Amino acid sequence: MTSFTYRRSFVVPWGDCDPAGIVFNPKFFTYFDANTWLLFEAATGVKVHDINERFGIIGIALVDAGANFMKPVKYGDDIEIVSRVAEFRRSSFVVEHKILLGGDLRNEGTETRVWAIKHPDDPERIKTSAIPDEVIKAFG
Amino acid sequence: MTSFTYRRSFVVPWGDCDPAGIVFNPKFFTYFDANTWLLFEAATGVKVHDINERFGIIGIALVDAGANFMKPVKYGDDIEIVSRVAEFRRSSFVVEHKILLGGDLRNEGTETRVWAIKHPDDPERIKTSAIPDEVIKAFG
Amino acid sequence: MTSFTYRRSFVVPWGDCDPAGIVFNPKFFTYFDANTWLLFEAATGVKVHDINERFGIIGIALVDAGANFMKPVKYGDDIEIVSRVAEFRRSSFVVEHKILLGGDLRNEGTETRVWAIKHPDDPERIKTSAIPDEVIKAFG
Amino acid sequence: MTSFTYRRSFVVPWGDCDPAGIVFNPKFFTYFDANTWLLFEAATGVKVHDINERFGIIGIALVDAGANFMKPVKYGDDIEIVSRVAEFRRSSFVVEHKILLGGDLRNEGTETRVWAIKHPDDPERIKTSAIPDEVIKAFG
Repeated sequence: MTSFTYRRSFVVPWGDCDPAGIVFNPKFFTYFDANTWLLFEAATGVKVHDINERFGIIGIALVDAGANFMKPVKYGDDIEIVSRVAEFRRSSFVVEHKILLGGDLRNEGTETRVWAIKHPDDPERIKTSAIPDEVIKAFG
Repeated sequence: MTSFTYRRSFVVPWGDCDPAGIVFNPKFFTYFDANTWLLFEAATGVKVHDINERFGIIGIALVDAGANFMKPVKYGDDIEIVSRVAEFRRSSFVVEHKILLGGDLRNEGTETRVWAIKHPDDPERIKTSAIPDEVIKAFG
Repeated sequence: MTSFTYRRSFVVPWGDCDPAGIVFNPKFFTYFDANTWLLFEAATGVKVHDINERFGIIGIALVDAGANFMKPVKYGDDIEIVSRVAEFRRSSFVVEHKILLGGDLRNEGTETRVWAIKHPDDPERIKTSAIPDEVIKAFG
Repeated sequence: MTSFTYRRSFVVPWGDCDPAGIVFNPKFFTYFDANTWLLFEAATGVKVHDINERFGIIGIALVDAGANFMKPVKYGDDIEIVSRVAEFRRSSFVVEHKILLGGDLRNEGTETRVWAIKHPDDPERIKTSAIPDEVIKAFG
């Protein structure tokens, strides 16, 4: 588990909620995705839209995602999303996200992402690449 | 008003509805956008993802959108979206969309779009271009 | 034009952008909707999820929306959305939204909303109601 | 594994895709959610918006979701989503979803859902309830 943590708070908007009055579950994966990019910006100091160019990648591609929805989150709730890299492997890493409401854990999710470059033989495909040491170090 | 009309029917999904149990209004603009592309595919016979390349454009860029929300559309409603080009101008056109439920008009919207190419002097900007006659003719 | 203004800034997330790398236009209406609720919270001091109950309404229902998309907004852009009520009528009001990037106007939109209560004769329908003076006064 | 299978095909819309030109991953969970409701409608013959009332539940609440993103799905791809209940337990069930492109498996996901009723002591909470035999039988 790396030590660098990114926290973002916001009031759940009406448009993210479903007829049950709670956040439509796929939206949590949208929250996770946004937090991963902002976590990288915060850790490395590179702006989100410069990350790909700065590191010569075509993205940090999501290959696996999962979440437990333990308690509902409602319209107008002031939630906090706390994210950090749980593990760096050679060319992939796992990001762990927690949704908190007043400090109480409501949901948690994980994303597995790969450090992706263009495949040398086929522009349609991606190829994984080793994550640079400077990136890993930035997460502490 | 051109004569070519595109109709698409679907059951309103849970995830498109808000805590009032009705379609979250911005989703209607998503419905309109999808219908405009499918209308073009149906009229020209060119698949949606080939349209830009086939006509040498970078897109049919939306410059203005508006809608009247007359009656609510609810989760599970089996709606029909009826779309056609109301008017072709030199380098722009107006698409008119109607949302019907059991033949009853619930909402209507319009989109103004431009036939857009890359600006010769600045890759960041777009430039409008004359809509080819063959495109206009395809709409009858 | 009322004087009370609400401003919200955020970095455009990846998931709000389309294959052209710019904000998918319907998302702007989502931004407008969120700002309208937050504008009401800021002006009246009533939390967004308490507004309906506090004022005995079933919502501030959107009946008309429109926008001009003048210049693209890209992934990672740090935008500001500036919103205010342009006009209060007896039972409806118009909200004006501007999207700014570094102070430069990129897009603008308007929403017409009605002060909605349950229809006394038909729970399926809504009825407009006079906007309370205290609400109008809160906007200056 | 139950035998009843629901298949839905559609062309991936522009608005579901991200700046990489591929489906923004959280959208797959939206696709899964829609398919689960349509799978229930197809198996039981009860319209999606009547399911809760017909069975006296407040929903089939999602408690866990996960997906593997094996190969990208692009704008304009004509995909098929194939869904079925992998397992019924007493008060929960697992739905398995596959995303196919021309018969080739691109992604797969699972959802765990509970048969949820209002908690007798606390309207804010839900309580799980045994899934009726008639529902389970409908899936073959």
